[in-house]
Amino acid sequence: MAKTLGGDVVPGVRAVRELLVSQSRPVRRVLFDQAHADEALLDLAHDVGARVEIVDTTRIAREARIETHQGVVALAGNVRDVPLDDLCERKDAFLVALDGVTDPRNLGAVLRTAEVAGATGAVLARHRGALLSPAAVKASAGAIEHLPIALVSGVPSAIEQAGRAGVWGVGLDAAGTTPIHELPVADAPVLLVLGAEGRGLSRLARERCDVLASIPMYGHIESLNVAAAAAVACFEIASRRGTR
Amino acid sequence: MAKTLGGDVVPGVRAVRELLVSQSRPVRRVLFDQAHADEALLDLAHDVGARVEIVDTTRIAREARIETHQGVVALAGNVRDVPLDDLCERKDAFLVALDGVTDPRNLGAVLRTAEVAGATGAVLARHRGALLSPAAVKASAGAIEHLPIALVSGVPSAIEQAGRAGVWGVGLDAAGTTPIHELPVADAPVLLVLGAEGRGLSRLARERCDVLASIPMYGHIESLNVAAAAAVACFEIASRRGTR
Repeated sequence: MAKTLGGDVVPGVRAVRELLVSQSRPVRRVLFDQAHADEALLDLAHDVGARVEIVDTTRIAREARIETHQGVVALAGNVRDVPLDDLCERKDAFLVALDGVTDPRNLGAVLRTAEVAGATGAVLARHRGALLSPAAVKASAGAIEHLPIALVSGVPSAIEQAGRAGVWGVGLDAAGTTPIHELPVADAPVLLVLGAEGRGLSRLARERCDVLASIPMYGHIESLNVAAAAAVACFEIASRRGTR
Repeated sequence: MAKTLGGDVVPGVRAVRELLVSQSRPVRRVLFDQAHADEALLDLAHDVGARVEIVDTTRIAREARIETHQGVVALAGNVRDVPLDDLCERKDAFLVALDGVTDPRNLGAVLRTAEVAGATGAVLARHRGALLSPAAVKASAGAIEHLPIALVSGVPSAIEQAGRAGVWGVGLDAAGTTPIHELPVADAPVLLVLGAEGRGLSRLARERCDVLASIPMYGHIESLNVAAAAAVACFEIASRRGTR
């Protein structure tokens, strides 16, 4: 059975604010903690005509399914995925694919970073890694309301499909021979592929990429967290595109 | 009473591995989950002569005080802080100060990123923000075994003290007028100051900095997570220093 992106449970102040402001999808209800609701957000929810309920903390925690809900959770329609081909059509395509990232906070953080860096879309795999769980939605801080996401059966085949559409596959890999700041394709349509925490890119994803880029390491410990690596790579690409 | 850095509880595979390999501080015991211990790490613990105990998951969780312990926790001496002046003495000083960062995972992630980017030290405040809790230690992935940390009474006064030692204070601030990639002081001794999630830099810290730098934002949502911002800024500084 095909999984959907999910994302219907939206906890946290930033994520809820962006959901309400963007009007990107239907909002069924917004639950606020009676003990400490964010006043500005409560006003906003009323202003946009959302159905507001003031409930106790236990209820918020139960609906939000995470502890770090900041006293607010919205219940909304699922995030709709878009076809990968639509993402590849843009001349300035700047896509970020996650190949096996399982930690929802990392997933959300990468989506947030990608959106702020001007990425035009994200690619997530159906059968591997985390989708838009409450923790991922909160960590994305509203990015999912703006960043179109393609849901694919596998990242390696998505790299191929993007390649046929003229989009360069750039894998971020510790063993990559091209330093990220010398990336020759940074101003072409690009699909940046990020691997799992620990294991890195899968063999197949690595083989399908046109370029393997790495972030220079200057310290003693072996690697960056995937969200930090995404931040460095996304902003390197953004600044080299001389973007916007 | 003066707080210490803490850091005596070390959960997670990466953090424990680096603790054992670096021999940076005394290790009292390493507890492994009998159900799924990391074999390579277990071998390493034996090799370095650590006192190893095989216990049940409940015990690991109790000692680790976080759920994401990956089946291993080491109990060690506290991380010792170093005087700020010592950090400022280096001609190539590249220091990262955290002004009010409260989320332990963000704190740990910033330390990890700083170490990999070649920072020569970190500055944490005694009375504000999180110190080296188990969650921070795990997220730092061993960076705290290598990155010297100064514990100061407040970040604004540390900026002044560093300034007297010839170290430039660079605040990262959304309202900063200097894009981070045009930082004029990137190859001078530098103290990069990062503000709290949400609120950003404190007024006092902002006033004490020599330069306020910002990361260009290309998307719709308002800001990066502090760990992502740290990654972009640290690697921008690292690459501009033409480092090492």
